[in-house]
Amino acid sequence: MIVGAGIMGVASALHLKRNNPGKQVLLIDRFGAPGQGNTGRSNAMFRNTFSSTDNQVLSNSTIDFYLHLQDELKADLGLQQIGYLWLMSDEQLSMSETFLGGMERNGIEIRRLSREELKHRIPGMVTDFDSNEEARLMALPSIEGGVFGPKCGRLDPDKLVRYYAHEFLRMGGLVAFNTNAERLLVGPPNRLGIDGEPFVWQDSRIEGIQASGAFNGTINADAVVLACGAWGNELLEPAGIDGHVSAKKRQLFSVSARGIKGLEELLHTKDFSPLRLLPMVILPKAGVHFKPVSEEDDFWIGCEDEVNRPFIHLPNHDLAGCAAEQEYYERSVNPILSAYFPKFRNAKVKAKWAGLYSYNTLDNLPFVFKQSNLIVVGGDSGSGIMKGDSLGRIVEAVYRDEGEASLYGDVHYKTSKIGITRRSVEREEWVI
Amino acid sequence: MIVGAGIMGVASALHLKRNNPGKQVLLIDRFGAPGQGNTGRSNAMFRNTFSSTDNQVLSNSTIDFYLHLQDELKADLGLQQIGYLWLMSDEQLSMSETFLGGMERNGIEIRRLSREELKHRIPGMVTDFDSNEEARLMALPSIEGGVFGPKCGRLDPDKLVRYYAHEFLRMGGLVAFNTNAERLLVGPPNRLGIDGEPFVWQDSRIEGIQASGAFNGTINADAVVLACGAWGNELLEPAGIDGHVSAKKRQLFSVSARGIKGLEELLHTKDFSPLRLLPMVILPKAGVHFKPVSEEDDFWIGCEDEVNRPFIHLPNHDLAGCAAEQEYYERSVNPILSAYFPKFRNAKVKAKWAGLYSYNTLDNLPFVFKQSNLIVVGGDSGSGIMKGDSLGRIVEAVYRDEGEASLYGDVHYKTSKIGITRRSVEREEWVI
Repeated sequence: MIVGAGIMGVASALHLKRNNPGKQVLLIDRFGAPGQGNTGRSNAMFRNTFSSTDNQVLSNSTIDFYLHLQDELKADLGLQQIGYLWLMSDEQLSMSETFLGGMERNGIEIRRLSREELKHRIPGMVTDFDSNEEARLMALPSIEGGVFGPKCGRLDPDKLVRYYAHEFLRMGGLVAFNTNAERLLVGPPNRLGIDGEPFVWQDSRIEGIQASGAFNGTINADAVVLACGAWGNELLEPAGIDGHVSAKKRQLFSVSARGIKGLEELLHTKDFSPLRLLPMVILPKAGVHFKPVSEEDDFWIGCEDEVNRPFIHLPNHDLAGCAAEQEYYERSVNPILSAYFPKFRNAKVKAKWAGLYSYNTLDNLPFVFKQSNLIVVGGDSGSGIMKGDSLGRIVEAVYRDEGEASLYGDVHYKTSKIGITRRSVEREEWVI
Repeated sequence: MIVGAGIMGVASALHLKRNNPGKQVLLIDRFGAPGQGNTGRSNAMFRNTFSSTDNQVLSNSTIDFYLHLQDELKADLGLQQIGYLWLMSDEQLSMSETFLGGMERNGIEIRRLSREELKHRIPGMVTDFDSNEEARLMALPSIEGGVFGPKCGRLDPDKLVRYYAHEFLRMGGLVAFNTNAERLLVGPPNRLGIDGEPFVWQDSRIEGIQASGAFNGTINADAVVLACGAWGNELLEPAGIDGHVSAKKRQLFSVSARGIKGLEELLHTKDFSPLRLLPMVILPKAGVHFKPVSEEDDFWIGCEDEVNRPFIHLPNHDLAGCAAEQEYYERSVNPILSAYFPKFRNAKVKAKWAGLYSYNTLDNLPFVFKQSNLIVVGGDSGSGIMKGDSLGRIVEAVYRDEGEASLYGDVHYKTSKIGITRRSVEREEWVI
C-alpha cells in the first residue's frame, strides 16, 4: 500500500501496479482527491538545470516522460515549456560558471544572455540602481547577465496527479481517499501473543497501518510505501525511524496583470519561447521569483525564504497555521521585486497560499530508502513534481529489491545512490 | 560564547580560550555544574574500534589526550582501559572481517578470540542453547568467537568535564551555570531600526542569545557555539537552521555483584587487562551490553534499542518523561543477558536512569558546521565523550575559519569533512 497521493505517491502507485499487475496495490490519502496536499500548493515548476548529475538524471527523465505524455499520448498536463531565466549579478555569474560547464558537458541545454540582450528582450526591467536609496539599503545587485534553461517550464499539478491516479485505477489499483493513516503498526514476523511485542530480541516489520476516516480500521499490507512528505514524520518518529525530512512554510502570491499595461506586456514577453510568454524569472536577490500563469493573466510570486524561517514540526492535518502572510509579501518580497520590475509596485495581491516545503538539508536531494518492508520516498526539497516519475520508478525497483531502476528513456539509475546506507549522490548547489 | 557544558561544550570552551587567549569566552549551561545533562547520564565508555577512518582518527586522538591527562599530567579522570569485548555469532564474525581488516591496516589494535578461549577466560558464560526453549524463541545465536579492543575503556564523565571546566576557568574563561538559553537572537549586521528585521533582503547573523535563570537577559556575542546535543533543536529550529540531530531515549540499569558469587567472579575476570576486570561486553543479540563498575562492584547494563523506539522532540528541560523502564529491563534486556550469563537472571536492578542519545542517522558521525557566526557541534551518535577532545579542537579551528584542525598527537584533520556542505566522512558501520 502507498500512503499519500501527492505526485510521489501516485507515481509510485502507478509504477508498482504496472510492474506487479498480480499484486493488490492500495493508495490512500487523507484528502478527497489526489494532489490536495503540498503537491497542489506548490509552484508546480520543473527544470533540468541542476548542478548535481543525480538531479540532472532524475529530472531529465521525468520531464521527458511528461513531454511524452502530453505530446505523444495527448494527455493534458497543462505543461508549458516557458523556460527558467536566472537574472544574475556579477558575483553570481562567476560563481555559476563551474555548474554551467558541468551542465553543458552533460547535454543540459542552457543559454547565456548578456545584460544588453536581457534589456532588449524584457520590457520594463531595471538593471541598475545608481540613485535608488531603497535598493542601496537592500543591497540589491545590478543585473549583469542571465542564464536561460529552455527545457524548463510549468505544468498543472492537478492534471498531472489525476493522470497518474486515473491510469492507476484503470489498471486495477485500489484507492481510499478521505482516509488518514494514524500510525504504523509494528510487529514481529511471528507473533507470540505476548503483550508488548515486538521486544528487542524479536525482528520487527511494518504490519500495516491504523486508518481513520472513510476507511476506519486496520489495513494490513506486505509492504508499505510512505510518500507523504513532511507528514511522514508523524508516522515514522513514533516507530523510531528517521525520515530525514524537515519542513518549512513556503508562500506564493498571485497578482493579476489584467489592465496593468506594463505587466500585461511583461507576461507576454515574446522572445524566449514559441509560447510567447515570459519564463519563470529568478532575481539576483533572496531567490525572489515570478512566473506567468497565462490562462489567468496572473503572475505567481515567491521567494527562497531560508534564513530565519522556522522549521515546522508535525503540522495539523489540515494545514491550519500554514497561511501566507500579506506582510511578508509587502515588506520582504515586493520591495525586491518592484525594484527590478517597478510595474509590480502597486499591483494588488489577488490570492495567496502556503504549503510545506520538505527539505533534505544535507545534500538537497530526495531519499528513497527501505527499512524492512517499509519504503520511504521524500525529502524532495521542492522538486517532487520535476523528479516525481523517476522517484516512482525507483520506489518500484526498491520494492522488488532491484539494484537498478529503469527510468523513462531507457535511463538506468542505481537505487542505492539515493538511499541511506550507501548514499552517494552529488550534493545540489544550484538551489532556488 | 558556548551554549552547553557537556563534554563537547567544555572541550570547545577550553580549546577556544587556549588558542584565543585575548577573547572573552563565556560558557553557559542550564544545570548547576558541567556534565549534568546527557554527558553525565551516558555510559561514558570510549573505544577506537570503528570502521570509519574518520571515527578512528577522532577517537584515537581523543583517547590519547585523555591518557596523556591521566598518565602524564596526573589528572584523575577515573579512566580504566578495561577494553571492549564483542561476543559474536558466526554471521557477525564473517560480516565483521572487512571492518577488522581495515582497523588493523590503520594500526587499531584488536584481538580475535576463539570460542574456546572465551569459554576459558570468562566464567559462567553460556555459548550454546541446544535445549533452551526460551533462547530458541528469542532466536539467540551461539557465540562462535570474539573481538577484543584493548585500547578501549571507561572513564568518569564528571571528572572529565570538571577537568576541562577547571582548566577553562583557570585560563580566564567565564562561566554562567543555571542559565538557560531561551532563544537565538537573529538580526542583520546593520540594524535599520525597522520592526521585523531581518527581512529577506537583509543579511542575517546570530547576535547572541536570550537567557533566563541565574543570568537573566540578553547576551551578545561575536560568535555562538551550540554544543547542547538534542536540545540544540529547540534553539535552531525557530531560527530555521537544521541541527541534523534526532534523539532517542537510552537507558542504563545497574546491578550489584556484591554477595552474588558468580557475578563477583565475572566482574573480576582476570585475563583481559592488567586491571583484572571484565571488559565491556557486547552480546551477539540486540546490542545488549554490560560493563564492570569496579569501585561500586556494579555492572551497568544497556541495550542498542533502535527499532520501534520513538524519536523524541524538544524534551522538557528537566529530562522529565525520560525515565528508565523497569519493564523494559525485565522483558527485553534481561532475557537476553541472562541467557548468555545466567547469574544475572535474579540479580535486582539497583538503580536505573535514562538520557537522550543524539543521532546523526545518516552516517552515524558527528557534525561541526558553521553558518554565519554560529557554530554547531553535535550528532555524536553516542560518542561525545570518546571524540570530545577532537571535536572541541575542530570547533576551535572552524571558529578561526581554519581548513585544518590540529588534533592531539600532531594529527591533522580537514574541518570541511565533518561539516555539511562539503561533508565527506566515511559512514560508520560498526555501531553498538
